[in-house]
Amino acid sequence: MAKEKKLVEAITSMEEDFAQWYTDVVKKAELIDYSSVRGCMILRPNGYAIWENIQKELDRRFKETGVENVYMPMFIPESLLQKEKDHVEGFAPEVAWVTHGGLEPLQERLCVRPTSETLFCDFYSNIVQSYRDLPKLYNQWCSVVRWEKTTRPFLRSVEFLWQEGHTIHATAEEAEERTIQMLNVYSDFCEQILAIPMVKGKKTEKEKFAGAKATYTIEALMHDGKALQSGTSHNFGDGFARAFDIQYTDKDNKLQYAHQTSWGMTTRLIGAIIMVHGDDSGLVLPPRIAPTQVMIIPIAQHKEGVLLKAAELKEKLGGFRVKVDDSDKSPGWKFSEQEMRGIPIRIEIGPKDIEANQAVIVRRDTREKIVASLDDLDKTVSEVLEIMQNEMLERARNHRDSHTTSASDFEEFKDAIANKPGFVKAMWCGDKACEDAIKEQTGATSRCMPFEQEHIADTCVCCGKKAKSMVYWGKAY
Amino acid sequence: MAKEKKLVEAITSMEEDFAQWYTDVVKKAELIDYSSVRGCMILRPNGYAIWENIQKELDRRFKETGVENVYMPMFIPESLLQKEKDHVEGFAPEVAWVTHGGLEPLQERLCVRPTSETLFCDFYSNIVQSYRDLPKLYNQWCSVVRWEKTTRPFLRSVEFLWQEGHTIHATAEEAEERTIQMLNVYSDFCEQILAIPMVKGKKTEKEKFAGAKATYTIEALMHDGKALQSGTSHNFGDGFARAFDIQYTDKDNKLQYAHQTSWGMTTRLIGAIIMVHGDDSGLVLPPRIAPTQVMIIPIAQHKEGVLLKAAELKEKLGGFRVKVDDSDKSPGWKFSEQEMRGIPIRIEIGPKDIEANQAVIVRRDTREKIVASLDDLDKTVSEVLEIMQNEMLERARNHRDSHTTSASDFEEFKDAIANKPGFVKAMWCGDKACEDAIKEQTGATSRCMPFEQEHIADTCVCCGKKAKSMVYWGKAY
Repeated sequence: MAKEKKLVEAITSMEEDFAQWYTDVVKKAELIDYSSVRGCMILRPNGYAIWENIQKELDRRFKETGVENVYMPMFIPESLLQKEKDHVEGFAPEVAWVTHGGLEPLQERLCVRPTSETLFCDFYSNIVQSYRDLPKLYNQWCSVVRWEKTTRPFLRSVEFLWQEGHTIHATAEEAEERTIQMLNVYSDFCEQILAIPMVKGKKTEKEKFAGAKATYTIEALMHDGKALQSGTSHNFGDGFARAFDIQYTDKDNKLQYAHQTSWGMTTRLIGAIIMVHGDDSGLVLPPRIAPTQVMIIPIAQHKEGVLLKAAELKEKLGGFRVKVDDSDKSPGWKFSEQEMRGIPIRIEIGPKDIEANQAVIVRRDTREKIVASLDDLDKTVSEVLEIMQNEMLERARNHRDSHTTSASDFEEFKDAIANKPGFVKAMWCGDKACEDAIKEQTGATSRCMPFEQEHIADTCVCCGKKAKSMVYWGKAY
Repeated sequence: MAKEKKLVEAITSMEEDFAQWYTDVVKKAELIDYSSVRGCMILRPNGYAIWENIQKELDRRFKETGVENVYMPMFIPESLLQKEKDHVEGFAPEVAWVTHGGLEPLQERLCVRPTSETLFCDFYSNIVQSYRDLPKLYNQWCSVVRWEKTTRPFLRSVEFLWQEGHTIHATAEEAEERTIQMLNVYSDFCEQILAIPMVKGKKTEKEKFAGAKATYTIEALMHDGKALQSGTSHNFGDGFARAFDIQYTDKDNKLQYAHQTSWGMTTRLIGAIIMVHGDDSGLVLPPRIAPTQVMIIPIAQHKEGVLLKAAELKEKLGGFRVKVDDSDKSPGWKFSEQEMRGIPIRIEIGPKDIEANQAVIVRRDTREKIVASLDDLDKTVSEVLEIMQNEMLERARNHRDSHTTSASDFEEFKDAIANKPGFVKAMWCGDKACEDAIKEQTGATSRCMPFEQEHIADTCVCCGKKAKSMVYWGKAY
């Protein structure tokens, strides 16, 4: 039992130190390891398998909307990066530069892509000539590099994995429609698969993507009350098309600039899963995303028939992602490990259970024990996973709602940010000066202007002038 | 019809200029486009979809052997690359160097991974302590960079997509077994899915991977008689473990060095598919790898009921990857396009066919037309695809066998290399000097020492000394 205690004790409790708890979980659940490369992490099998499931689910949803996958070079020549003014200003300070190829210095240095708008624009300018060539709905799965000074596993790293969708359309309306469509794909995926409810809305001018006409975002609330931007979708209008001269002839044979969008989600989502659902025993994975949904743990496995029965149950549960832990560790150690890794349910099966034709199902989230007949174990497991998935979403929604407050004036606002971790809803006049002042005085940033607007007051929470929008504010990762 | 002619005429014929034919096909079938980045290509949807199918098939086979996926950083610090002497000598001259992050010069420059042995070794030295930690069977899907001077789409590019497996074992025997196991996975995949037969064998010392104890390879023969190295599997022995100090305590509590392997396959396989199966009308894709297996082309689609019937057939063929081309192009144009893209079969359906309750199936490879009843169209399609897959493999095998000759002395050898494009089997003494002389005088390189050895002569084809092995020689991509 000493070893088991050690495994569990190794995690700092969430209440004591949330940041340390997070670091402990990512390491102890073997999601990542640190590498010899500053700010870059190693995604270990437990971590990468979650990403594979995210990819599979998202990729299917993208393709259902007509998106096709492509692959663009990882390098961007400096002159190409510089073509769109706002874009280069936003990204140039944080890119990695390749200056030598083999033993030779390069004539023009190349940056490692921080994002690929410029490459897609260059490509589109070659392949888009007529309205018949539109739309193009492309996406790529790859890694990107941003030279961040302070890094944290999954949340902010020098290199990270993501998908970036880049579409090009004949009209402004189509581009706007696609921008919102993909935001909804993201939001539905997060709710249905990751059990994370989102606030959907538009970013302010200050917070929007470098080069975008409008950026839309989905924002989640972590267990500690901090916000996490979880996915963004940008409408570029014809800004990039003008910078890269992407014109097409329309049906009336007139030249028109095309309209573009881009949208991305990253391995950051794994950070969100950890910080929304995790507890003091480690990770808690929603059943629909868990690489292993069921861990069968034999009790007294040296006794005749136990391992055989465990193997039999595994086969019976073939419709799920299921494993048997028949290693030579103690059952208690195996329990701790299964809990640390967030495997949604474990099934305990020992000689007495076999005799009674039953097994004990234990839910990872509530630790509820369910004694189930072996005859319809697959049906029971299916039900328990379904209930767990729904209840995890419900709990996350309750947590978010109970950590969302409103503020009508600046005193209330400051008090809420300081003392009530979570979102604060408050009115805003639309001026960047107020966003700057709020950030400086409270540490909170505007998360989004939600699609579902509410009237909280007539005036801006900061300057007292006439309000234009209701904004979600919060401290953020 | 003018337009149709143009599409087909745009391809140079294979006999006239094979290299130009190849370039025409990759462009006209819209597999790739060139980018603004020297030596880097854009994988377009038609090309990337083939890679996605390759990934899916290979990944499943890897996982069946216990392999897990991970993701390692794309950068390697210079000091890490230098740890294994042969390895750094092999790769340092052809890597891209990152020297600046954001606006600051780096203290130590980083190369963009040309391959990731050093990163995996660094990782293994952290996580492998005891025999209980072994083996680790890891793989990653990513892109790598090698600063090649001359590049060709799929065959040789500055950046390319691949998978790299890296395993670590307690014993030399286990490592050797895994090396051969993965070579067999590769070979089976190429034969069964890509319809490309392989010659399996061991590379000579001269041709082996930088840092390996032994390299095994699968070699394919292209339509023009040149060889293409299609996959390699390396046994490192304990060489890397000694360089990176990866030791574990065995069951007797003694420290031991671990044994490692690595194995990789790349987008080069797409080049192999093109050059083994293609013809003067474009690409010919084996049914099992084709992103679209069946293209339904309505004839006289403006007539009542034709498009409806086409949609109905599509649904009936739901078990296949099937599309309907209902664009406003002429049927002839659609035929050319479907042929160019290598879609295995097309189904022509017009008013007369509908009346007769039939459709015309046309095989891409032989152009054979099969009039099939609509009642059991799915069954017929299934049979035709299966036959086509098998016959494509058979034709490729016949081509390889009929382009493989033997040479007993150097005159015969030179004549064969000069006048009979293909593999030449000949004996070799084992000396690098003879490989060098053969390359210099004929342009041929040793492809492999095949597992299935034959006795062709007693003496080395080059120097006349006692022969040690029978070797496959050839000009290669």
